[in-house]
Amino acid sequence: MPISMHSVCAPTFVRMLGNLQTWLDKARAHAEARKFDPNNYLGLRLAPDMLPFSRQVQIASDTAKGCMARLAGVEVPKWEDNEATLAELRARAQKTIDYVKSFAAAQIDGSEGREILIPTRAGEPLVFNGESYLKHYALPNFYFHVTTAYALLRHAGVEVGKADYLGGR
Amino acid sequence: MPISMHSVCAPTFVRMLGNLQTWLDKARAHAEARKFDPNNYLGLRLAPDMLPFSRQVQIASDTAKGCMARLAGVEVPKWEDNEATLAELRARAQKTIDYVKSFAAAQIDGSEGREILIPTRAGEPLVFNGESYLKHYALPNFYFHVTTAYALLRHAGVEVGKADYLGGR
Repeated sequence: MPISMHSVCAPTFVRMLGNLQTWLDKARAHAEARKFDPNNYLGLRLAPDMLPFSRQVQIASDTAKGCMARLAGVEVPKWEDNEATLAELRARAQKTIDYVKSFAAAQIDGSEGREILIPTRAGEPLVFNGESYLKHYALPNFYFHVTTAYALLRHAGVEVGKADYLGGR
Repeated sequence: MPISMHSVCAPTFVRMLGNLQTWLDKARAHAEARKFDPNNYLGLRLAPDMLPFSRQVQIASDTAKGCMARLAGVEVPKWEDNEATLAELRARAQKTIDYVKSFAAAQIDGSEGREILIPTRAGEPLVFNGESYLKHYALPNFYFHVTTAYALLRHAGVEVGKADYLGGR
């Protein structure tokens, strides 16, 4: 079957968010072995003016959720960013996986030309077509935030490696 | 036009490697302003057992080059990893952009089912079809290395931001 808008985004989100759950499990195990509070990871930052770990996970989730909804032309659900523990961040990843899986391929396929508006703080929205939004906004943003989450855990000494990053074979 | 194997990979590589060149330019400017050797970036690591900045750029390049060649069914060119300066890393990014652009869409499109073998140190190669290789190996690896390169510069105080990461609008 030819590659399609749905086959490019949905399996990527599901796979990488599943991998993220593995990284969170390894982070918890690392904290337990060292006897520190696993929720200490949530405030880690690579630089003082970068968003903390918890926000990296939440924004990765938002990017996947927003991409599916916008390409399907349905309202983007609002989820409270109230996760305060590593376990709650893991549940957020699962909720996102379930949301991505709730879309049929037919809802997303053919959305290459759909007009997508992304609100900005400055006022004027960013305007994309579906294909450009997927390739040059949603996917790079998604990978940015999952990779930054991974980098924070790796930097903190959690024993994750490239096989955990790529995941599920 | 429907999304295709070529339209998913080539514009992504070209755009993100162009963005990387902007980050390198900002890194050079940062070094000049602080009067330190801009080649000091090349050895930076997020953790002592992670690859340094120079290797992150080289592997991002290799991932893009290998993806184009393998999907087109041509031999992957071997490039020496001998870049020793920031300027040489910038040239490596440009060489990669030029290589990606040297492929016609027709060479890559329709490669969803092509068998792709990736050699491993353990001996047994990884076996993919073209679509799975693109989505679950080449793209995540590519984004891993460009994002880690970005994170290293960001961590080092270079004034790059999300607009530089996403780039060219």
